[in-house]
Amino acid sequence: MTSVLVTGANRGIGLGLVRELLNDPSVATVIATVRDIDAAKDLTSIENSRLHVITCEVTDEKSVEAAVEKVAEIVDGKGLDVLINNAGIYRGLLLDGDVSKAVVMEQFEVNAFAPLLVGNKFLGLLKRAAELKGSAQIANISSTLGALEYAMSQSTEKPKTVIYAMSKAALNMLTRRQAFEYKEYKIRSTVFTPGWVQTEMGAADMDSMVEESTGPLAKLILSLTEEHNGEYYRYSGEKLPW
Amino acid sequence: MTSVLVTGANRGIGLGLVRELLNDPSVATVIATVRDIDAAKDLTSIENSRLHVITCEVTDEKSVEAAVEKVAEIVDGKGLDVLINNAGIYRGLLLDGDVSKAVVMEQFEVNAFAPLLVGNKFLGLLKRAAELKGSAQIANISSTLGALEYAMSQSTEKPKTVIYAMSKAALNMLTRRQAFEYKEYKIRSTVFTPGWVQTEMGAADMDSMVEESTGPLAKLILSLTEEHNGEYYRYSGEKLPW
Ligand SMILES: NC(=O)c1ccc[n+]([C@@H]2O[C@H](COP(=O)([O-])OP(=O)(O)OC[C@H]3O[C@@H](n4cnc5c(N)ncnc54)[C@H](OP(=O)(O)O)[C@@H]3O)[C@@H](O)[C@H]2O)c1
Ligand SMILES: NC(=O)c1ccc[n+]([C@@H]2O[C@H](COP(=O)([O-])OP(=O)(O)OC[C@H]3O[C@@H](n4cnc5c(N)ncnc54)[C@H](OP(=O)(O)O)[C@@H]3O)[C@@H](O)[C@H]2O)c1
Repeated sequence: MTSVLVTGANRGIGLGLVRELLNDPSVATVIATVRDIDAAKDLTSIENSRLHVITCEVTDEKSVEAAVEKVAEIVDGKGLDVLINNAGIYRGLLLDGDVSKAVVMEQFEVNAFAPLLVGNKFLGLLKRAAELKGSAQIANISSTLGALEYAMSQSTEKPKTVIYAMSKAALNMLTRRQAFEYKEYKIRSTVFTPGWVQTEMGAADMDSMVEESTGPLAKLILSLTEEHNGEYYRYSGEKLPW
Repeated sequence: MTSVLVTGANRGIGLGLVRELLNDPSVATVIATVRDIDAAKDLTSIENSRLHVITCEVTDEKSVEAAVEKVAEIVDGKGLDVLINNAGIYRGLLLDGDVSKAVVMEQFEVNAFAPLLVGNKFLGLLKRAAELKGSAQIANISSTLGALEYAMSQSTEKPKTVIYAMSKAALNMLTRRQAFEYKEYKIRSTVFTPGWVQTEMGAADMDSMVEESTGPLAKLILSLTEEHNGEYYRYSGEKLPW
């Protein structure tokens, strides 16, 4: 019986993943992290004893450490099977416009540093699950914009996404390194793109409604095997180039 | 007659590039930037009227703006033909050790944010050169460690390079986007790896002495054409995968 944690779960893709995970009876425990529980009504109004909502500011060491303590209590010695680093931000910036250092650094902090921090702090619980079940899984939510291979065509319509793309390329690299470094602990790491989804981040003209992405994405994450370790997948299961 | 600017030119690969550029008579003006002119004796002791040494802390907006002013005076209306973003730092961090947010953010700031900032601030002078000569060039100095394709084999001996690798993957993405966005101004952007070079950053057991890398690298940078735009090369000219 699997335990799964999703960061940034109060809205958008994170909330969608929580709903899908709760629909799957093989998932015994869903831990949803948010920054502000009181404001997370869409999440806290879900009535399900398998759902646990806790706070986590993913860029803050102390907040992540406190979340680890709470998860340890929830899983009660059984470890954490799947960590989904979903929390992320999009900050627009033009390469030939004004550059704000604060904006660039915030973009890197949330999308690239935080998944490293969260993966590092939850390592003990992931190790424990891997010992008991033979493997544990990190799933990092990146973007197609993180693909260098596509960067010179996709940027056509999306010049403002440059620092977002840089942060996601860094996240993709983190995933490769986690896959390699954590292998000895039987912890895998895989990176995903959810596609263009209608959320607060993704505009209303995006291709998909949340559940069109999170339905297949949740299934994919729950079915990962050794061959997916360190690779990059579209929510639909198609493998992407770097 | 070409003008070339090199950041982080007081030592290591930056200093080596300056020496090679001065050896090439087609280069009329070499602008070497350093953080501390008084401490840059190896550079300032070079006697050559084509060499101009100015200060630039590449992460600081005001310092970069002041450098742009000085370069504008030096090139006197002719613009800047080649900008080499060489300044960089290496910060070691283990994915299963203690994570310091300050260290991670500093790594991103110098290696990924600064080249974006410097490219942005020098855009006017690069545009000017491109108008006069038909093209201008940005050369970003990355690392083989920035290649996602190689990340799961190379990390074997180098687990501590994870945040360095993330910062260089972000720099590679910046290069792709600069190549795409600045195309309309006839400014190209290309990313390079200098190989493993004996410098303060590269240990003494690295493969190459500085000039074995900077000799071919300087020649390569001075011979770039449209086909190199947005691509990734070893100093020796071999094209790398992402
Ligand atoms: N939508 C798309 O088309 C699309 C495409 C490609 C990739 N993605 C990726 O998918 C993931 C989810 O995106 P989304 O579309 O669902 O975005 P969203 O609707 O804007 O939701 C972002 C979530 O991340 C949380 N978050 C942001 N900063 C945080 C921090 N410092 N600490 C903790 N939580 C934080 C937000 O919490 P608050 O409510 O507290 O701000 C929110 O729950 C992101 O990683 C995004 O880059 C989305
Ligand atoms: N050596 C290798 O094997 C190797 C391999 C792959 C890639 N590289 C890349 O090659 C480039 C040069 O490396 P190197 O081996 O020559 O390193 P190095 O000997 O450590 O020199 C680094 C240079 O960058 C400057 N610098 C650092 N932070 C700066 C800042 N904030 N503002 C301005 N200048 C700054 C340093 O100036 P100070 O003296 O003032 O600190 C110094 O001039 C780097 O981008 C590095 O990542 C090197």
